[in-house]
Amino acid sequence: MTSIDNFWAVVPAGGAGTRLWPLSRSAAPKFLRDLTGTERSLLQGTWDRLAPLVDERFLVVTGQAHAEAVAAQLPEVPAHSIVAEPSARDSMAAIGLAAAMLERRDPDAVMGSFAADHVITDPDVFGEAVEVAVRAARDGWLVTIGIKPTFPSSAFGYIHVGDALDGHAGAHAVREFVEKPSVEVAQGYLATGTFQWNAGMFVVRPGVLLDLLAEQDPDFTAALRAIAAAPDTLAESWESLPKIALDHAVAEPAAAAGRVVVVPASFGWDDIGDFDSLATLLEGAADADSGTTVLGDPALVHAIHSTGLVVPAGGKVVAVIGLDDVVVVDTPDALLVTTRAQAQAVKQIVSRLKDEGRSDLT
Amino acid sequence: MTSIDNFWAVVPAGGAGTRLWPLSRSAAPKFLRDLTGTERSLLQGTWDRLAPLVDERFLVVTGQAHAEAVAAQLPEVPAHSIVAEPSARDSMAAIGLAAAMLERRDPDAVMGSFAADHVITDPDVFGEAVEVAVRAARDGWLVTIGIKPTFPSSAFGYIHVGDALDGHAGAHAVREFVEKPSVEVAQGYLATGTFQWNAGMFVVRPGVLLDLLAEQDPDFTAALRAIAAAPDTLAESWESLPKIALDHAVAEPAAAAGRVVVVPASFGWDDIGDFDSLATLLEGAADADSGTTVLGDPALVHAIHSTGLVVPAGGKVVAVIGLDDVVVVDTPDALLVTTRAQAQAVKQIVSRLKDEGRSDLT
Repeated sequence: MTSIDNFWAVVPAGGAGTRLWPLSRSAAPKFLRDLTGTERSLLQGTWDRLAPLVDERFLVVTGQAHAEAVAAQLPEVPAHSIVAEPSARDSMAAIGLAAAMLERRDPDAVMGSFAADHVITDPDVFGEAVEVAVRAARDGWLVTIGIKPTFPSSAFGYIHVGDALDGHAGAHAVREFVEKPSVEVAQGYLATGTFQWNAGMFVVRPGVLLDLLAEQDPDFTAALRAIAAAPDTLAESWESLPKIALDHAVAEPAAAAGRVVVVPASFGWDDIGDFDSLATLLEGAADADSGTTVLGDPALVHAIHSTGLVVPAGGKVVAVIGLDDVVVVDTPDALLVTTRAQAQAVKQIVSRLKDEGRSDLT
Repeated sequence: MTSIDNFWAVVPAGGAGTRLWPLSRSAAPKFLRDLTGTERSLLQGTWDRLAPLVDERFLVVTGQAHAEAVAAQLPEVPAHSIVAEPSARDSMAAIGLAAAMLERRDPDAVMGSFAADHVITDPDVFGEAVEVAVRAARDGWLVTIGIKPTFPSSAFGYIHVGDALDGHAGAHAVREFVEKPSVEVAQGYLATGTFQWNAGMFVVRPGVLLDLLAEQDPDFTAALRAIAAAPDTLAESWESLPKIALDHAVAEPAAAAGRVVVVPASFGWDDIGDFDSLATLLEGAADADSGTTVLGDPALVHAIHSTGLVVPAGGKVVAVIGLDDVVVVDTPDALLVTTRAQAQAVKQIVSRLKDEGRSDLT
């Protein structure tokens, strides 16, 4: 894999990963954690995957609270390429600011935005899709990469794939973006073969993105370009920016106008939304003797007649007996015991702890 | 409750309580732990229950490794009343030695042996049964207290109750002691109404006990009396004593000879054999909101759609979601997650840890 000329990775690094509590905390969110047992955080994994494509052209947009940790985890990325948001204002502001900065820095830039907390198990296939996407983006398209669904997930949005794009092998028109469906609807999507998962991966020339935004909200684009022109105004201007996802602000209206294309691709991908999907992701490493999957030191885990996921992150011995599809996450200051089927309810615990003023634990 | 003249409590304090790991350890066994949430250990609970009956006439027989901890927990008991066994040689040696010592100390003594790690929820009813037992014991009987069974347990031995004893209201002949039955057999026992649980509570004059033993094994009795006469020979003589339970050495043959009586009584009793029985014992304190029973600080436990027992002894927050009859025991250096139904299998974990040389954890 060789690097792609003028191609910039833009990595928004945000999101608390509430459903991965107590591994993920607001002070140490999901993207800063090693959730794959590789001794690399998800953010570092994102760097590892993108660096061959972009060399040093890598921009992270993260919260001020995490800028230092991001810099420490990515020593290869210079300080001026880590943009610290004064507060979380959703993806349009974060990615739009990066676009406005790149527009000034490199007139020939093509940017690709990729979340900091996703896992991709076939980086070469991913890289090939990015190459196709960049070629289409150079011609002025807003390009998204759509992932071939492997099961009828109700946790992801979908992209309805249309006709092939003339002159760009591998790219297709986007008919529409659809919100998270029910499992039944998703089953119908999979049966057609024309729906891909929307992983929020957008490849586009910065100016094209900002101009598409300007068609919906010219003040927003103007504000982003003004900040990029005078970076020391960031703090004072930031809070007045709209809080909206890029999907709603740009991608959906542009798709309706026939100006978005998709590169369908087939690589292993997960956003590790909860412990159930983390368990699925890690299952290949399951201990055949015990049946449990361990994220961490397997020597700490003693399992009898059990299956599921055990995370001995507290450093102490964890014994599990007679529980199927259990989730046990031990950390130094909090312990979670649940089942894979109940993994979504973890956020209720986080809400309760917040209500009780235990922000030290969330 | 007033004290009973010349009545001595003999409390053998031994047993690792393996099925209560990781709460119970060989270095800090069950009897030294507060398993009832009363801030009193089971040993201290035993003292609290017996002190009104015996005043200062209280003898503990324990392992050398625990003598110091026993003394610290029972400041009311003088040092010479804590007998340290050089090694564990089962109950006949422990209780027989106490008998031989008391025989010399108090010619009119009646002793009652009561385990250090049982729980009795109706101490007044217990005390009344002891009074009846002591009266029969003064007449030379070996007296046991039989507990009215509340369910067909296969974990306890039973006493088959015979005819009433003339001249001792409340006392009956013992037909026989029976070993732990199957649940089906136990159901039959309960249907007859003439079987009581054998909790190993024996009330007897020390000389009577030793003489009954001498009928089976005169050397054993002679050795015990020799040690009592010359306490500094304990270490050298101890290892040659037979390793046998009092039930087999004395109670069963004496019952066969028609020389044992039983005082049937009806009080809440448990030997807390495992986390299932501990959960039953503590259920009265269940948190109505969460459905889980907590041994420890309830503020540390956040349970959603769960029932079972949670022990937050590690001092940190424990979240449990969507598990029924779960057992979660968190301690600073080991965590157990299982179900009430699997509670017996905990000893397998302890065996594994021992096999791995982790005696620090067992």
